[in-house]
Amino acid sequence: MKEELSEFYNIFTGTKKDIESFMAMLDPVINNAKDDHERLYYHHIYEEEEQRLSRLAELIPLIETFQAGKGGDFAPSNNTFNRLLQELNLEKFGLHNFVEHLDLALFQFKDAERQAKLSEMRGSNHTSYQFVKEKLAGINERFDTGYTDPHAHHDEHGDHLNQYAHNHSQVHVQAAVSLPAKPAGPKRSFTVGSLISK
Amino acid sequence: MKEELSEFYNIFTGTKKDIESFMAMLDPVINNAKDDHERLYYHHIYEEEEQRLSRLAELIPLIETFQAGKGGDFAPSNNTFNRLLQELNLEKFGLHNFVEHLDLALFQFKDAERQAKLSEMRGSNHTSYQFVKEKLAGINERFDTGYTDPHAHHDEHGDHLNQYAHNHSQVHVQAAVSLPAKPAGPKRSFTVGSLISK
Repeated sequence: MKEELSEFYNIFTGTKKDIESFMAMLDPVINNAKDDHERLYYHHIYEEEEQRLSRLAELIPLIETFQAGKGGDFAPSNNTFNRLLQELNLEKFGLHNFVEHLDLALFQFKDAERQAKLSEMRGSNHTSYQFVKEKLAGINERFDTGYTDPHAHHDEHGDHLNQYAHNHSQVHVQAAVSLPAKPAGPKRSFTVGSLISK
Repeated sequence: MKEELSEFYNIFTGTKKDIESFMAMLDPVINNAKDDHERLYYHHIYEEEEQRLSRLAELIPLIETFQAGKGGDFAPSNNTFNRLLQELNLEKFGLHNFVEHLDLALFQFKDAERQAKLSEMRGSNHTSYQFVKEKLAGINERFDTGYTDPHAHHDEHGDHLNQYAHNHSQVHVQAAVSLPAKPAGPKRSFTVGSLISK
């Protein structure tokens, strides 16, 4: 678990920086929106990422607490550990949704500068999503929580996030193929709040 | 708290039905999308609501547990109570984001049947969002948690969700004006995970 914590720490501090870059990219787009529909569209994505940022501001120090050996046991009898797993599960979806926000932006911001920045963030956050998904599936198996991943049915025909990668730049496609050559993860994972009730 | 629980129960069972109606509305739109961009756009919203549905499948029974007097004390020393507050706070944002998903759909599905259904759901979920936001702000004051609402700065010039109400149908505007005549809620609220660490 110590090793995984260190990787989770890097992933969530990394994606936090990427949210900030993405929000800075959306800001002028919101201000210069041509109508209410366009403004709502970008403002909505901006707010969802802002909500994620505020959750990461809780999760990152919690990971640090465990890294410092101050979080208690890695056991379902420890409520702080349950909270860690619950938040990690939520941020797995946060990463998934962020990758889709970046994909949507790649369809819209066609200049070279933004395409390059978005593609780079898309690649690394997709890799992060796959990592977190796999690790959480493993942790779930270990504790035999028996909960259903609400996304599992989307994965049955492969990870649909990959299908959009083909439409974007080369950087992007490279990121997609550099993923570990594993089939889509197990069909079960934590559901928010599922652990604390144990 | 007993009264509020009963209202929370009605709100979350009601919004659960609305998510299901909305997902059923999106389903044929995804299947008949004219290109990858359009498909990703609607599929993304569909998945975010699906994630919310799976969280509500945890929250609703938890509310019922407290209604049945089996959740323990309404006190920060009770981890199950903290979990309840943490999930309610998350679903406050879930309601907020849902209202915006409905607003985005109102800009796009222009036939009378869908406009009527979307407007009706928009009205009731906006009212629910305002209620949950106000009640959680009150609970927050009571326990003096001292956490910052990441949306508070959007509320400083009034609730921005209201501004879009003007653009849609009459049903919609009526829903917006029938809200309690109160200024935007306090600037502080729970942050996910903020309470369990107490």
